[in-house]
Amino acid sequence: MQKYSLAIHGGAGTILRAEMTPEKERAYETALLAAIQEGESVLKSGGSALNAVEAAVVLMENSELFNAGKGSVFTHDGVNEMDAAIMCGETLQAGAVAMVQGVKNPILLARRVLEASEHVFLCGSGATQFAREQGLEEALPDYFFSEFRYQQLLEARAWGRVQLDHSKKYSTVGAVACDRQGNIAAATSTGGLTNKKYGRIGDSPIIGAGTYANNRTCAVSCTGYGEYFIRGVIAYDVSCLMEYKGLSLQEAAEFVIHEKQLALGGDGGLIAVDAKGNIALPFNSAGMYRAWVKAGEEPGVGIYR
Amino acid sequence: MQKYSLAIHGGAGTILRAEMTPEKERAYETALLAAIQEGESVLKSGGSALNAVEAAVVLMENSELFNAGKGSVFTHDGVNEMDAAIMCGETLQAGAVAMVQGVKNPILLARRVLEASEHVFLCGSGATQFAREQGLEEALPDYFFSEFRYQQLLEARAWGRVQLDHSKKYSTVGAVACDRQGNIAAATSTGGLTNKKYGRIGDSPIIGAGTYANNRTCAVSCTGYGEYFIRGVIAYDVSCLMEYKGLSLQEAAEFVIHEKQLALGGDGGLIAVDAKGNIALPFNSAGMYRAWVKAGEEPGVGIYR
Repeated sequence: MQKYSLAIHGGAGTILRAEMTPEKERAYETALLAAIQEGESVLKSGGSALNAVEAAVVLMENSELFNAGKGSVFTHDGVNEMDAAIMCGETLQAGAVAMVQGVKNPILLARRVLEASEHVFLCGSGATQFAREQGLEEALPDYFFSEFRYQQLLEARAWGRVQLDHSKKYSTVGAVACDRQGNIAAATSTGGLTNKKYGRIGDSPIIGAGTYANNRTCAVSCTGYGEYFIRGVIAYDVSCLMEYKGLSLQEAAEFVIHEKQLALGGDGGLIAVDAKGNIALPFNSAGMYRAWVKAGEEPGVGIYR
Repeated sequence: MQKYSLAIHGGAGTILRAEMTPEKERAYETALLAAIQEGESVLKSGGSALNAVEAAVVLMENSELFNAGKGSVFTHDGVNEMDAAIMCGETLQAGAVAMVQGVKNPILLARRVLEASEHVFLCGSGATQFAREQGLEEALPDYFFSEFRYQQLLEARAWGRVQLDHSKKYSTVGAVACDRQGNIAAATSTGGLTNKKYGRIGDSPIIGAGTYANNRTCAVSCTGYGEYFIRGVIAYDVSCLMEYKGLSLQEAAEFVIHEKQLALGGDGGLIAVDAKGNIALPFNSAGMYRAWVKAGEEPGVGIYR
């Protein structure tokens, strides 16, 4: 039987050791390890890659540390609007949601779109209505409020700028997994940009850009400057380099992040697995919150380069 | 100097000769020819591919015949929500909008996103606000109302189903062009699905799925069962088959539509050009409204296979 593997990210960007405290580092490492263990427990007991990435992302959505779910940043209008996507590499089925408000776990909504909708991509109040009809847990604005995020908004408003989380940190969360059946899956969830206006949607919920999975090649979840990841169709690019050019997972993922994305001007990173359980975690920014595990091995966790 | 070329589509699907009248055929052919001539006049005078695809799509958005702009179908709530995208193959810059209401020409809004926004993808009321700030022409619900589309909605509501336009016709519009400088561009615009709910977004505004352009490979605009085009990342797939596998435009476009899309279960078609001015117009449905022209040649127009 195939050995399982799992990787997660909690965002990439200008994460500098000088700006961190030992307490903060420990808090992130603890949260990442908890999420990787949550996902691993699904895979260990023979569960699907789809369930594993969902479980890992739910835990990160429930943490205040990451810009997704509970920890989502505020838009210009002072609300939390969240995007998420999930894709199954076995069936190529996908579910994505954007600009969702009041849903505790957007990744569960994306999963319901995958399972119970004839559509792939739902947006705005319509997506929230679908969540309600599907009986998903709602959450009031209080749940998403944090003084830290609110101060970020006030600061961004005062400066009149859209902030990529905070000083070029892209704290999207995501997970990719390969299960014991050799099926792979990817999931991504984000609270978007602090002070964002105009209903901006980034790469996270875009199938092919921020999220993609295909058993023939790889499962990918991205984090970075979303506009560049959309224009580069980054997640699917990794897949095509493997399928059409014969590159390995590691080669394809590194080429896309270190050559193509940098040439375009974008920074960030991605996590990827293939159906043999290989893992790649390239990023071209100063840091990327990440953790990974393979069957029979201890989980690893990293923040800096 | 490079010879220019241009192709447009007005949707694909179950377009059967038996269901058409000579008058209807003539009306579509006249509208398609007017749009191709509008785009060609830009290219003939040395204008950019980006301006040419925009001009051709604007004309189709202004026609009642196509499901885009003025002719957009009604959502479940009886409103017109439109999506559009445009991409420049020279710079890889892109602009996309979704769920836009009250904007006369969504493709002009997508172009403003490309030119004047730091973002790529704007959605919902935020996108409409951006349109207003950019001084784009607005249009009242009256402008979009047609008795024919309203009857389609009532019928779809009575049957309780979402209609892909009408009986599997996907009447998105789109254009791809190669200009005399050898730059290429793609544009797509749609009114979505009759009776659509839950804020569904299709492939048209998704860069990589319904719309993509890259001078190194091709410019593509798709029309078909949107969910399958998203899952297949169709437009970028054509590009990758050319870039990574060395296929010609024709080979790549036909493989994607006739092999990959059919295997996935999706139907529809696409129009594509490369930077040498070659044109491909494959579709796997009964028909696709289309027209095309190359420098020094008479324009062609077609509806059925």
